[in-house]
Amino acid sequence: MARRKRFSGWGYEDQGPDQEEIDHLQATWSRCFKVDAFEATPAPTEDEITLRSPRITIPTALADFCTHDHYERLVHCYGKSVHDLARMLRRDFSNPPDVVAMPRNEQEVIDVLDWCNASEAVAIPYGGGSSVQGGVEAPSGDDRPVVTIDLRHLSKVLEVDPVSQAARIQAGVYGPDMERQLKPSGLSMRFYPQSYEFSTLGGWIVTRAAGHHTTLNTQIDDLVESLRVVTPSGTLESRRIPKSGAGTSPDRLFIGSEGIFGIVTEAWMRLQPRPTHRASASIRFKDFYAGADAVRALAQSGLHPSNCRLVEADEAAFTSAGDGQDALLIVAFESADHPLDAWMNRALELCADHGGINDTARSADPQAHRSGAAGQWRNTFLRAPFYREYSTACAVMRETFESSVTWDRFKDFHSNVKDAMSSAVKRITGRPGLVTCRFTHVYSDGPAPYFTYYGLGDKERLSEQLWDMKCAASDALISHGGTITHHHSIGRDHRRWYDQQRPELFARALRAAKRELDPKGLLNPGVLIDP
Amino acid sequence: MARRKRFSGWGYEDQGPDQEEIDHLQATWSRCFKVDAFEATPAPTEDEITLRSPRITIPTALADFCTHDHYERLVHCYGKSVHDLARMLRRDFSNPPDVVAMPRNEQEVIDVLDWCNASEAVAIPYGGGSSVQGGVEAPSGDDRPVVTIDLRHLSKVLEVDPVSQAARIQAGVYGPDMERQLKPSGLSMRFYPQSYEFSTLGGWIVTRAAGHHTTLNTQIDDLVESLRVVTPSGTLESRRIPKSGAGTSPDRLFIGSEGIFGIVTEAWMRLQPRPTHRASASIRFKDFYAGADAVRALAQSGLHPSNCRLVEADEAAFTSAGDGQDALLIVAFESADHPLDAWMNRALELCADHGGINDTARSADPQAHRSGAAGQWRNTFLRAPFYREYSTACAVMRETFESSVTWDRFKDFHSNVKDAMSSAVKRITGRPGLVTCRFTHVYSDGPAPYFTYYGLGDKERLSEQLWDMKCAASDALISHGGTITHHHSIGRDHRRWYDQQRPELFARALRAAKRELDPKGLLNPGVLIDP
Repeated sequence: MARRKRFSGWGYEDQGPDQEEIDHLQATWSRCFKVDAFEATPAPTEDEITLRSPRITIPTALADFCTHDHYERLVHCYGKSVHDLARMLRRDFSNPPDVVAMPRNEQEVIDVLDWCNASEAVAIPYGGGSSVQGGVEAPSGDDRPVVTIDLRHLSKVLEVDPVSQAARIQAGVYGPDMERQLKPSGLSMRFYPQSYEFSTLGGWIVTRAAGHHTTLNTQIDDLVESLRVVTPSGTLESRRIPKSGAGTSPDRLFIGSEGIFGIVTEAWMRLQPRPTHRASASIRFKDFYAGADAVRALAQSGLHPSNCRLVEADEAAFTSAGDGQDALLIVAFESADHPLDAWMNRALELCADHGGINDTARSADPQAHRSGAAGQWRNTFLRAPFYREYSTACAVMRETFESSVTWDRFKDFHSNVKDAMSSAVKRITGRPGLVTCRFTHVYSDGPAPYFTYYGLGDKERLSEQLWDMKCAASDALISHGGTITHHHSIGRDHRRWYDQQRPELFARALRAAKRELDPKGLLNPGVLIDP
Repeated sequence: MARRKRFSGWGYEDQGPDQEEIDHLQATWSRCFKVDAFEATPAPTEDEITLRSPRITIPTALADFCTHDHYERLVHCYGKSVHDLARMLRRDFSNPPDVVAMPRNEQEVIDVLDWCNASEAVAIPYGGGSSVQGGVEAPSGDDRPVVTIDLRHLSKVLEVDPVSQAARIQAGVYGPDMERQLKPSGLSMRFYPQSYEFSTLGGWIVTRAAGHHTTLNTQIDDLVESLRVVTPSGTLESRRIPKSGAGTSPDRLFIGSEGIFGIVTEAWMRLQPRPTHRASASIRFKDFYAGADAVRALAQSGLHPSNCRLVEADEAAFTSAGDGQDALLIVAFESADHPLDAWMNRALELCADHGGINDTARSADPQAHRSGAAGQWRNTFLRAPFYREYSTACAVMRETFESSVTWDRFKDFHSNVKDAMSSAVKRITGRPGLVTCRFTHVYSDGPAPYFTYYGLGDKERLSEQLWDMKCAASDALISHGGTITHHHSIGRDHRRWYDQQRPELFARALRAAKRELDPKGLLNPGVLIDP
């Protein structure tokens, strides 16, 4: 039997934080909240949950790949946000999908959409289910039966073009499986969002995900060469072209569309050779804003570091071997073509110009990115979703809010958002918490700051407290000039702020396009726009 | 009185090819076609042309900025393609706009669109009028009166943000005027399409223009931070954000929309500091495909040269001081931050790996890009539109077709397109001509090849011959897997091939969006889509 994913949390059933990690988390929270110990509410088991009876019958023709299976309906109930976790810990599975479809090829995607169309059912496209914005759950207040369409079996790398460094890839493939299939070609997408292990190519495309590259091709948008999309009105495929000036880009209509127009079934994606040269350094700054100035200089230098992550002192102490005194900047370059001395030397000069202290021994070790502060950061980055789950079970509120803002507004934005979040933690939980910031991505015109808060909630009203914090943080992001999301999508949870951010006339244009491609409004109702 | 633009050709009334250039062109054509001399049909004069009486009366409220002036109607009759030139030389001005509006602020843009809406007139947005695809002419077979809206007075740089390296700029500004206004800030857009002197920011945005940068930010698309657009349904403005993952990008719906949804009135644009370091070299290749392999290596190296233009031997002899034996590659780097030795050294290694011969003395001269082969290429590039006009007047057919194609298909594409064009020249003109190719832009997954042909036409049937050649070349681009345009837009002239290239369902989505933003179909009928 294949390894099963946990229905109530992150990862596979045999995964989760180990005892050492749990001890570390408990010790950290004890210091932060002056509380001795934290008790984790046990995760729900399959047997505990009774699901609503399915409201629709699977036709015989689709029975091979559609199911009412209890476990599958549980797995597909929610995404992976803290709000989802809190609801699951409360044993609230009141709005499950009625059917989970797992089409094995594009024709079956068409067949299941046709069935939804004919039977007035809602269709929820589902990749890895890692949404943290309510992007994969059944809409509330909608009486139609719900069919979740899980693309996991569309998982093949169909074709590699080594000359153009591109590949045609089915949209349901998970990150590691995709890279495993690409490996013999020597090429890689070099795209590692935090969800990498449990998210899919198609999910990345429709949510405009961002990978670990801090500059240049940060978002999946620029890696898409062409797309195939199945809509209720038919199937379309864009032409494979390096760059085209032929009208409004067809791909860009679907990139970021979060499944409201159709289901991406495959894409030609741009790849790169695996890097053979690497250089990395950890730089300390006495002051976060001095570090930000150095990052701005780097972002405007044309050096294009692959990593350029600035972490506040408090957060560095949590995640990156920092001593809690200094902000930490990790700078790295990678190349499959050339040694990086000139690049790194200039980057270090720019850091020194802004008071950065480089106390990393320079290393030619090709595994250097896996050790030291960079390695520790990398490890924490990948393990964070497991920690999030454990913290929620302990009623330790921890959520992240990420945005992007121009440099001219950054310092005000940073201090205003932090103040608003700190006040909100105190107001909502009755005691101080911790709010930290790091940069996940940087551009010549501004950074993508990523805020994390920690607060000690009450198990009884955790959902409400988490939502209140989300509102306070999101209001601050929007009112101080940021975007509601740099790479976590809109889904249903971000709608209130997205609706303020995006021009209303643009929403009208999207609605019109939706009526054309999905006339009955089957796909992902409530995501991005209302019909 | 302000310097007036020529209504029947490129540039200002005091511009055109000088005698030395004319002698050079004549000598070149003589060698090519074995004909002694070529006589240029004189350009039409204003007095010669009688225009159709205006079919609509300008309301008093708009009289300050709307006109029936003869010269203005003549100037706004056509774009600047060879097809336009041929019709002008034939004294065919049978479908002029009835009114030319020159709004002085955004409110006047709104006012004139409201008037068009109320009076069922067609509105043609007009920037510099440099379209080579019929993007700014009145639609044929449409009885509605036509109002051309020339944005020339929306020409201010409104605000510069030196910290984020961005500026808020009105869309009607011409290239040189924009750079003049930016100059005190030390920042520049570094965006030089061939039409630079006679095209506008708004025109670049709605046609997805490409500048002289050969890699990375080639297209205007990536330089747009936010937009303001006036549509018949209202005005919208996107939020100024470095990068956002909030749904489908609003900006990308309007970038490339060629004025069918609304009129871009201003944009926040990303800028760069003016370069202080430069390095350039000219490399010869015995074989064009060996040069292409070197360019591919450069495009996939992560070095990001600012220039990386490969020119076939035949074309190099015409334009770049080549000897007609070798293909010529111009490689250049520019930076405002760091010396470029490591970059150029590695680029030269890659060229040498593919048999490139570097016979340029390396120079630290900051004006090096204005001398030598690079300088000659640059000069020919900027003067080409004047030559095009003179050649058309001599019935020397010369048009360019540009595309983009993945590397795996490039060699077949190149030879098939050249063969198709060469056969077509012979079939259409009755004698051999010349077909050459260069790369204007290159990407990791493919180049943007740019084909030029020369053929000796007949003055009597020049329009038909030019159109037949366009059909033959465009058919070849599309059938061999390219895009119909990398950076020359669709307009009306490219429609036949664009309609084959873009997915029909996408066109339906665009039409639906158009009905929402421009319900009466005022704006640019026939461009991109039919209502």
